[in-house]
Amino acid sequence: MRIPLDRQSSIPLYEQIETYLRQGILSGSLAADTRLPASRQLARDLGVNRITVENAYAGLETEGLIYSRMGSGTYVLPPNPILTISKDGPGAPWPLWQQSVEFQDRTIKNQPLDAMFKKPLKHSPPISFDSGIGDAHLFPAEDFRKVLQTVMRRDGIAALDYGEPNGHGPLRETIVHILASQGLQTRSENVLITAGSQQALSLISQLLLKPGDVILVESPTYSGALDLFRSLNFKVVGIPVDGQGMQVEMLEKLLQQHHPKLIYTIPNFHNPTGTCLSSPRRHQLIILADRYNIPILEDDFVGDLRYEGRTQPALKALDPGGRVIYINTFSKILMPGLRVGFLVAEGPVYDCLVNFKRVNDLATSTLVQRALEAYVTVGRYQAHLRRSCQIFRKRRDAMLSAIQRYLPAEVRLDPPQGGLFIWLQLPEKLSSEKLLPLAWEEGVVFAPGNGFFPDGLGGKNWLRLNFVAQAPDQIDEGIKRLGKAIKRLTAAQ
Amino acid sequence: MRIPLDRQSSIPLYEQIETYLRQGILSGSLAADTRLPASRQLARDLGVNRITVENAYAGLETEGLIYSRMGSGTYVLPPNPILTISKDGPGAPWPLWQQSVEFQDRTIKNQPLDAMFKKPLKHSPPISFDSGIGDAHLFPAEDFRKVLQTVMRRDGIAALDYGEPNGHGPLRETIVHILASQGLQTRSENVLITAGSQQALSLISQLLLKPGDVILVESPTYSGALDLFRSLNFKVVGIPVDGQGMQVEMLEKLLQQHHPKLIYTIPNFHNPTGTCLSSPRRHQLIILADRYNIPILEDDFVGDLRYEGRTQPALKALDPGGRVIYINTFSKILMPGLRVGFLVAEGPVYDCLVNFKRVNDLATSTLVQRALEAYVTVGRYQAHLRRSCQIFRKRRDAMLSAIQRYLPAEVRLDPPQGGLFIWLQLPEKLSSEKLLPLAWEEGVVFAPGNGFFPDGLGGKNWLRLNFVAQAPDQIDEGIKRLGKAIKRLTAAQ
Repeated sequence: MRIPLDRQSSIPLYEQIETYLRQGILSGSLAADTRLPASRQLARDLGVNRITVENAYAGLETEGLIYSRMGSGTYVLPPNPILTISKDGPGAPWPLWQQSVEFQDRTIKNQPLDAMFKKPLKHSPPISFDSGIGDAHLFPAEDFRKVLQTVMRRDGIAALDYGEPNGHGPLRETIVHILASQGLQTRSENVLITAGSQQALSLISQLLLKPGDVILVESPTYSGALDLFRSLNFKVVGIPVDGQGMQVEMLEKLLQQHHPKLIYTIPNFHNPTGTCLSSPRRHQLIILADRYNIPILEDDFVGDLRYEGRTQPALKALDPGGRVIYINTFSKILMPGLRVGFLVAEGPVYDCLVNFKRVNDLATSTLVQRALEAYVTVGRYQAHLRRSCQIFRKRRDAMLSAIQRYLPAEVRLDPPQGGLFIWLQLPEKLSSEKLLPLAWEEGVVFAPGNGFFPDGLGGKNWLRLNFVAQAPDQIDEGIKRLGKAIKRLTAAQ
Repeated sequence: MRIPLDRQSSIPLYEQIETYLRQGILSGSLAADTRLPASRQLARDLGVNRITVENAYAGLETEGLIYSRMGSGTYVLPPNPILTISKDGPGAPWPLWQQSVEFQDRTIKNQPLDAMFKKPLKHSPPISFDSGIGDAHLFPAEDFRKVLQTVMRRDGIAALDYGEPNGHGPLRETIVHILASQGLQTRSENVLITAGSQQALSLISQLLLKPGDVILVESPTYSGALDLFRSLNFKVVGIPVDGQGMQVEMLEKLLQQHHPKLIYTIPNFHNPTGTCLSSPRRHQLIILADRYNIPILEDDFVGDLRYEGRTQPALKALDPGGRVIYINTFSKILMPGLRVGFLVAEGPVYDCLVNFKRVNDLATSTLVQRALEAYVTVGRYQAHLRRSCQIFRKRRDAMLSAIQRYLPAEVRLDPPQGGLFIWLQLPEKLSSEKLLPLAWEEGVVFAPGNGFFPDGLGGKNWLRLNFVAQAPDQIDEGIKRLGKAIKRLTAAQ
């Protein structure tokens, strides 16, 4: 045990030891039944006389903080509530470097939800349409448990080593085959496994941009990307989105004006609008990126979740030579908690990304990668995808008809052909952020629009509804509650 | 399936589909036995006539690339080796933004080892003293397998969700109790779980420094930290280390000269030298950091692995108010592949780190965190630590005596009282980088000294030996081989 001692101090050593242990026990950091080192051992560790330690222990024992059992050692007693000291931080102010405003800037404000958690609830928990992921109950937890067993039995210690810097080879092979079966051809030497697509996003943008550089994004776009780019002090410039996705016609002007270092786009079932980039715009986007020598980061997080209509190729599949960096994840349609995503890139940037990943966290848990590899075959992935599409299509339709039934005729939306989200426009005068607390009281939550806009304002009367996370009956009930909230807000105007 | 089609092109659609699938099959990205979509389905997906798809399939079938089984569908055949096309990248040059020198700068040069892997080997695999971790065979893989089962059975789907942004609560509690049992008192609200201590290092340094800022490190220091700092374009300034650790007497001059934004230190069983920072220097370091308003990052990766002598408190335990940010990991004494580490910080910087972690990868696998929490109790940790210390002490002694037996009398070292490493000095005229290829041929590898110095040069005649990763007999044999290599190098001078 390492106890800080000040041998210059006038306070005797036994008292310093006693004080340090007392503080640990009363603050609860030294848990009840923790065995303290034998006095001989601790005396040796600290380089003090054994009597010194015995005096300290004796003091604590008379205070009823520890007890010694003959021959078995000295143990911590459960703290006496009356004695327990405050858990607050130190009275002294934080060091100056901690008081710099930069920290305030870098801390993202919490969602308005946090403020409301205290309010009493009619229905608790509320029906949640605000998440960014699929329905946890569809995740094959039991199958995965069995696979983990197989892998641990099969690989033993190897399952717990660092593994290859660009990810578990067989898993990269599987990813190549899955992508090919979906119409994107690449090679395992171009795949890098990451801790979810969020880490891919983080590595790529940090490698290609410095603080102060401009990144071009759709407006609106994925709020988690905006949070990341802001925390890295990038300048974020938005391109408007319409029913055909990013308005590429406006791209060239923005490229000339802002000289961005990267274009971040979600061309398939865009988050939050659910739209798909039209085919002509896809070609135009790649041509412009090439002409202005700017890399494209394609986030294809639910590109395969199509419920009807024509497929669109991934931008990556249209890119002959290393212009597009592609990211995807298993979190959305398989298991979020696994935190396994991947990127596909060619050329020097791939090697830089592998190295940057290595220096950032060495590797992503090989155990999880091996288990995922053992679980996900092309066939299994396709089957899971088919099943998800069937279930999600029904849920989308359930939400669309519930919206017709319960929401005022003035709300506007484009029915999405796939993905996870419905992007809903309220009547001009209604604010989705004002609506949220009322919805919360009625027992339903959603994601307000402003959070998806680079300026944090553009989505005043918009909201995002996740239609895959709830069963149809819950969807119906949730939208009904949303309808009530909208009535109350309208009445309050 | 999403296949890119160009409807403007003069090439007929059936041919475009055929070409795209052919390329996938010949390149191997479309694996043998992959089931292709039914022609009706694919026609619907692509918005083309069913005949178009059937023509494409027919063409591929006559080429012997696919076959259709009545009523069961169309499948990819194993590629015919003669047909298989080259796996090389595109002939065209990479986009200009990929050719920027910055990428070359950012790619860390590989260890000289890579070059040698081709050479024929007397002994393969060689005995490895070059790793930075413990002995994989001591990792409790089988116990951990059982724990994973329990957790998956107990938590089911919950084990696969995102979890809390700062990490699984119960695991943070356990960490607090383990730290307290080792003499460091903190609270679970000040612990942040990370993907190994490497991610903690990355998050902290990126939060506190901008590219171009100065970071102060011991010289030599952990090479993985140097790689990270270089890839982030920080200026790295080194402070010399002697038998008492960082030479703090020189610190004040460097602080005034370089205005660093952070001091990175490994005060306990320093990597690579194995030394411990003396008690007076610890106090002096904290006083100076306070006076010059500079945060200290304490890397305590093996602080508990002491085999003899007096313990030293963690710097964190000497710091009353938020000056020291502490990082540690379970990788070194438990299981590297789990990639679970943590940091301890107080004040505004803690909240910023939690948020920065969130935007960087959302969370670290909750499954692994829950399993680790179920596995690691204070008692179990202490028992594992005791056992590791007993085993590692024997191995250190085995290496020390092997060095006496097999290496020339001119080599110099300070026997470490704990940790993983012996830091060995060769006679002045011998270069450890020249020694490595010879050692490799003799069947032993080590980490050459230069890699641990900020300037990449300081360690010309130094090398780092990991004494915990091999059993005593292997250590004896390995040092014997090292002795032969040194003889050969000396003779070659």
